[in-house]
Amino acid sequence: MVLVSPRNPLNIGAAARAMANFGFERLAVVAPFEANWREARSAVGAPDLLAGAAEWPTLAEAVAGCTLVLGTGTLTYRTAEQTVVPLPDLAPLVARELAQGGRIALVFGPEKHGLTREDLSYCHVLVEIPTDARQPSMNLGQAVAVCLYELACRGDAGRHRAVAIPGESGVESGELDRLAGVIEEAMAASGYSPRSMQAANRHDLRLLLRRMALSKQDTRRILGLFRRILWRLGRAASSG
Amino acid sequence: MVLVSPRNPLNIGAAARAMANFGFERLAVVAPFEANWREARSAVGAPDLLAGAAEWPTLAEAVAGCTLVLGTGTLTYRTAEQTVVPLPDLAPLVARELAQGGRIALVFGPEKHGLTREDLSYCHVLVEIPTDARQPSMNLGQAVAVCLYELACRGDAGRHRAVAIPGESGVESGELDRLAGVIEEAMAASGYSPRSMQAANRHDLRLLLRRMALSKQDTRRILGLFRRILWRLGRAASSG
Repeated sequence: MVLVSPRNPLNIGAAARAMANFGFERLAVVAPFEANWREARSAVGAPDLLAGAAEWPTLAEAVAGCTLVLGTGTLTYRTAEQTVVPLPDLAPLVARELAQGGRIALVFGPEKHGLTREDLSYCHVLVEIPTDARQPSMNLGQAVAVCLYELACRGDAGRHRAVAIPGESGVESGELDRLAGVIEEAMAASGYSPRSMQAANRHDLRLLLRRMALSKQDTRRILGLFRRILWRLGRAASSG
Repeated sequence: MVLVSPRNPLNIGAAARAMANFGFERLAVVAPFEANWREARSAVGAPDLLAGAAEWPTLAEAVAGCTLVLGTGTLTYRTAEQTVVPLPDLAPLVARELAQGGRIALVFGPEKHGLTREDLSYCHVLVEIPTDARQPSMNLGQAVAVCLYELACRGDAGRHRAVAIPGESGVESGELDRLAGVIEEAMAASGYSPRSMQAANRHDLRLLLRRMALSKQDTRRILGLFRRILWRLGRAASSG
């Protein structure tokens, strides 16, 4: 489980406690507020897993080794750029990924505004907790508890329901980032788009690569192709 | 939803927020700690439903109008005296009760020790959240969120699974208490058991009446029978 910039030590503690309640052990935090994070870790009765939590400067690094990254949030205030799966329908997707030996990350954003559009671009799927439209926003500790309950207790539920979903490919998030980097180099080297579009293109590319549900072999092939293109472009540049 | 003697205002607020998140509106509290309860109600951003919550001195009164009373807790430290339903299997039971026009109460105990044996004797069913044996006890606000998520989002799930369960009788909890009162009078009047056994008998009787899944007609018949017995016993006493 990954918490991005959690603020309230009580919420961090509650999230860790829900993990212990439902038998989850590996916690990572991204760019925490240092004082609050220290306070949460040293709180009386803090679950052991808080002491063993990994700290990362960016979400990309935290989920680099994962094959299925699940972002959480509500859609009340925006439109999703990735596949949305209601939490009650999540179990079969997770079961299949685990059966394939995949590694799953469940990602929660900061209390105030949730995951940003940038954060979500690292997620294969946006998991939505179906809340009431009049009060859609959940407390962080409670959202964590509800999601982990679903994952822990519904692993077998609805196995018969087929959910066609991207991202079940066994390709680690970090590999996709490396591929994106090479493609971006090729875009730049080939003069594909003006510099002012680079950030937007990077974002769209990240989403695209996760939507495509590439296999490992696909990923290697595309990487090889773009490396070849880059080499040719470099030669063209030096000979031109 | 019913909270029995909740202590921490933050937990009360969290429970109310989860209710708002999942579209539940009617909250009752039993014997709250007055200062904490006032603090929770007057907190900034407290959901409206806290202001409208009903206050009762006893659980019996709070659930008197309900036809299915669901207690919550874990079984780690004791053996249940009533039917236990794991939370993931609760939906069909609730759906059926609602289809019959029943009124359901979901009851949570105090933070420290949960519902007492006495509290649970007013419950038709003990709902168990399947938590990890190493850390079974959940935070109150998180337990509420998980239960309400299940009730709100799983109403239709597993409709095909039949769960044979007592308590789906349409008889209000208060009616059962009235019946128990008359039976107890008859027990006393007939010299059924020594005074020292009265509390234990009362407890067992409460459990028995809920286990029997009486219909309204059954309830009326038994009540009539025991009133008749009492009348006869009274005559016997006055003529004897």
